[in-house]
Amino acid sequence: METIICAEKCQSMVPAAEDTLYIIAGKWKVRIIIALTGGDKRFNELQRTLSGISARVLSNELKDLELNGLVSRKILDDGTILYVRNDYADSLKNVMKELVQWGLEHKQKIRNREI
Amino acid sequence: METIICAEKCQSMVPAAEDTLYIIAGKWKVRIIIALTGGDKRFNELQRTLSGISARVLSNELKDLELNGLVSRKILDDGTILYVRNDYADSLKNVMKELVQWGLEHKQKIRNREI
Repeated sequence: METIICAEKCQSMVPAAEDTLYIIAGKWKVRIIIALTGGDKRFNELQRTLSGISARVLSNELKDLELNGLVSRKILDDGTILYVRNDYADSLKNVMKELVQWGLEHKQKIRNREI
Repeated sequence: METIICAEKCQSMVPAAEDTLYIIAGKWKVRIIIALTGGDKRFNELQRTLSGISARVLSNELKDLELNGLVSRKILDDGTILYVRNDYADSLKNVMKELVQWGLEHKQKIRNREI
């Protein structure tokens, strides 16, 4: 009976988990946030830091991250546009910690042929 | 200086986080694991539980989940094949908890127009 209750309760939680996955999953979102952790960057600087990303993809990913409050733009007096990692991105710390932890342990299990 | 150290340290952690995201992200993986939390299921049963998933997609997702030790097959004496959620799927509990937590809080911030 307990597993069925959990299944139902878990089921109701799925959309919230999917929201988070939708916001951070994919090849670039996490890398962009981390690249900006090292300091604000212009678009071209950011693109150079993230080898292999096209301008179109970077532009779309930045729009998504801006939409979700994780990144914002700062326009300097001379018109230069800088991309800034918002403090709100810190809220992802626990999610990132668990993702990294599970990923490292999972890789170790594969190496040990436990899976 | 501290943010730069973090940026570098974070950078090294990205692949592990991406491994986890690669394994659980996407529309169906989490839903499949949860559907099997309610009990072992035949392929068709599982497909019915997950409205909207095609047989081809379900088959691919199950292969990935089997490959990563989260799901396995059980063949009954009469040849029936059941899909089973492995205990190893419990190891995702903390990841799921943080994903759900962040997703719920993020949604609340959007409702409160804080983002």
